[in-house]
Amino acid sequence: MKNFTRFESKGLTESLLKLAKIYKREPWRDHELGKGRRLGAVFLNPSLRTRNSLQIAADHLGLSMQEMNMSRDSWALEMSEGAIMNADKAEHIREAAGVMGAYFDFLAIRCFPNLVDKEADQSDDVLKQFQKYSKLPTVSLESASRHPLQSLADLMTISEHSKKDQPKVVLTWAPHVKAIPHAVAHSFAEWTLGMDMDLTITQPKGYELSDEFTQGAKISYNQEEAIADADFVYVKNWSAFQEYGHTPKVDEDWLLKESQLQKLAPEAKIMHCLPVRRNVELADELLDGDRSLVLHQAKNRIFTAQAVLATLLKQPTSIKV
Amino acid sequence: MKNFTRFESKGLTESLLKLAKIYKREPWRDHELGKGRRLGAVFLNPSLRTRNSLQIAADHLGLSMQEMNMSRDSWALEMSEGAIMNADKAEHIREAAGVMGAYFDFLAIRCFPNLVDKEADQSDDVLKQFQKYSKLPTVSLESASRHPLQSLADLMTISEHSKKDQPKVVLTWAPHVKAIPHAVAHSFAEWTLGMDMDLTITQPKGYELSDEFTQGAKISYNQEEAIADADFVYVKNWSAFQEYGHTPKVDEDWLLKESQLQKLAPEAKIMHCLPVRRNVELADELLDGDRSLVLHQAKNRIFTAQAVLATLLKQPTSIKV
Amino acid sequence: MKNFTRFESKGLTESLLKLAKIYKREPWRDHELGKGRRLGAVFLNPSLRTRNSLQIAADHLGLSMQEMNMSRDSWALEMSEGAIMNADKAEHIREAAGVMGAYFDFLAIRCFPNLVDKEADQSDDVLKQFQKYSKLPTVSLESASRHPLQSLADLMTISEHSKKDQPKVVLTWAPHVKAIPHAVAHSFAEWTLGMDMDLTITQPKGYELSDEFTQGAKISYNQEEAIADADFVYVKNWSAFQEYGHTPKVDEDWLLKESQLQKLAPEAKIMHCLPVRRNVELADELLDGDRSLVLHQAKNRIFTAQAVLATLLKQPTSIKV
Repeated sequence: MKNFTRFESKGLTESLLKLAKIYKREPWRDHELGKGRRLGAVFLNPSLRTRNSLQIAADHLGLSMQEMNMSRDSWALEMSEGAIMNADKAEHIREAAGVMGAYFDFLAIRCFPNLVDKEADQSDDVLKQFQKYSKLPTVSLESASRHPLQSLADLMTISEHSKKDQPKVVLTWAPHVKAIPHAVAHSFAEWTLGMDMDLTITQPKGYELSDEFTQGAKISYNQEEAIADADFVYVKNWSAFQEYGHTPKVDEDWLLKESQLQKLAPEAKIMHCLPVRRNVELADELLDGDRSLVLHQAKNRIFTAQAVLATLLKQPTSIKV
Repeated sequence: MKNFTRFESKGLTESLLKLAKIYKREPWRDHELGKGRRLGAVFLNPSLRTRNSLQIAADHLGLSMQEMNMSRDSWALEMSEGAIMNADKAEHIREAAGVMGAYFDFLAIRCFPNLVDKEADQSDDVLKQFQKYSKLPTVSLESASRHPLQSLADLMTISEHSKKDQPKVVLTWAPHVKAIPHAVAHSFAEWTLGMDMDLTITQPKGYELSDEFTQGAKISYNQEEAIADADFVYVKNWSAFQEYGHTPKVDEDWLLKESQLQKLAPEAKIMHCLPVRRNVELADELLDGDRSLVLHQAKNRIFTAQAVLATLLKQPTSIKV
Repeated sequence: MKNFTRFESKGLTESLLKLAKIYKREPWRDHELGKGRRLGAVFLNPSLRTRNSLQIAADHLGLSMQEMNMSRDSWALEMSEGAIMNADKAEHIREAAGVMGAYFDFLAIRCFPNLVDKEADQSDDVLKQFQKYSKLPTVSLESASRHPLQSLADLMTISEHSKKDQPKVVLTWAPHVKAIPHAVAHSFAEWTLGMDMDLTITQPKGYELSDEFTQGAKISYNQEEAIADADFVYVKNWSAFQEYGHTPKVDEDWLLKESQLQKLAPEAKIMHCLPVRRNVELADELLDGDRSLVLHQAKNRIFTAQAVLATLLKQPTSIKV
């Protein structure tokens, strides 16, 4: 593993999950591993769970983490090659990332898509430029395309709460009030399918996800059919992918109800990556009931991040300026 | 002491003050006490002294502190139960505080009142929701109703500078240019009266504080009468409490002068919690003169915070997710 | 050295450079030096390199650093003596700096000029008030007049890349899209001339720097003449100094080209303090070519800051409140 930005293999994922579970029992067992090493954590977007779980994971490993909140602590970044920088951006990503490469041993980056330019978003151009110009091993803290640390924590949570070898996992679209990125949904599909899990995805017409991520999943436009006998229901909104970033009107009611689950999937656990819009994406009765795993998912963000950082720390670092 | 959000007892306060004075002499004596424990510090409002003194106190105890500046680093929080979150708030306090409960051992929270909804403010609903959903021991860094860490530092400062067993303490209203919360004034009254001190409160008509906090104090509408023979004069603005958050016009001049003190209370020391509006709340001649204890109060914020954190650390922690 | 805010002497600079080079090889050799000491780092302006290099330098020395982002984390500061604070500023620098004096052992301050009031800017009134009211040893992280940590890193970079005892150093004005402070240019002149280096400064009519800093340098209005046979070309924009903060129109093309260097100064290395406006101040072909030392300058910010902090730490500290 040189970087942690996407699903790589079933074997690697199994070893990360195994290590994460060890850290959950003994968080301080490798507290010397990061000594004298530095993690630069770049936030181009807000964060609560990601920021704090990464910080805790780094502390457990004795790794120094420095946060950089771009355009607030620092300078607004120009991302275009060859740009004539005569507008509002004070620094080019070449220099910003280049300097980070000179200052840190690892980089972690949160960079949401703009949901306007599909090609730029899906190519992860911002993440890739940070990697290219810093020349550092990089951890994605959610990029335009994926949210791998979330997916790993999701898999860990499923593994902890599953009573079956091959549980039925359903990813269902949910309503929202604004256009939301596809990263969590795509990433969840990529990781569960990569692990050969039984995944069903359900969404309204117009909200189909990218084939690149969903190949192998059962797809349904009928939420009730999809959730029947589900063991885990991952609830999440995303905007349209084909008509990129749009939010076509949905006539049916996609807000899941406890009564539906009692009828169709009485054993089902409810998952969400948070933050969640209560009573828009997910009803109070589900979030506050016994089915909800959302705080378990959030807690596991610490130990999966720690497993990823530890794995990177055990590898030889790149040579710097 | 499960939480530190208000005055509890004379005995507890005496032991906190005793411990704070020990830490002032030997700040590092308990530097192993917080090892492996985490304090989440939530700021919904700006802070200089509170933020830095808490950080220093935590460092002295080897306690890891993580700052969360809500709506800037993280997401804007919805506080209403049952809300349909279809507006601008991206996360509910149930999830935000729930996640903090999964990540930290203690919580510290700064949440100013809005000065519009008196009932909500005075019930400390924001603070209480953080406590309820995090299930963590909580330290108030100034809530709508109180500023207990400030009051404890104020008592420590009075104790260090008092030449009498029972000094005369006066809390006087001072002018300001905008509506200011009641927390510092109410809290100062609660703590001094709780310690059976001789407290006089003086303010213009319309600016009476809440009976809940001032019962036992002498109340006067005449500043000169009130400050006569004072040993400590705590100067502070607050908005109207009855006509909640309003700022009725005051005709007399309430800006204290050195000449008045020379005549009426030549021994008086001047106190203020800071930040202070110079020459609006308090004149340069008083802030810059020998009477001023304001930097001593600020310095003592470190050691009183340290005494509070140490006392919490010595108690069994709550079980978490 | 009581403070580090300007060039003091050739001897001190030589010893700082020597120490910085030692730290570059062995960053952790003095990791106990700062133990139990605290650095308050005040940012009134954005920062990437300065913030991160200072943090890394402090970590290497075991020195605790606390950042204060004024007007964001904390309160907007009033800077005028005797002000009646009835407008938008909530705290006076007397109290803010006074409290810092009670909380920290050292202060580091970034405070850009406003480019409106020349006298106030050039007297470094903001920096001096922080020094005066904190009573702490102070490090400038770029003030209105100077950027001494940058200049020290620049000298270190020249020293590492020079093939001659007395290289020809050129400071050239470059275009920009807005009014830029003089601190980097003035400081670079002050330090290179203080070290008896061969310095040529070139700029268009109207952009002459202050005599106070440039005395001893060769001055030219012809960029091509100036750069002939240069070993190091420091490229930087600044606004007019006489017609303070203005940006008179420049008709000639001052954007340096690789073809010019090949013809006039084939051995020349290119320097810039960053952030740089690509293709406005400095062309891609130069920034991305072998001549560029900009990432070396940025990297050396760590070790020069460390040398400065270590030198301050080795001296007796001031007595505090």
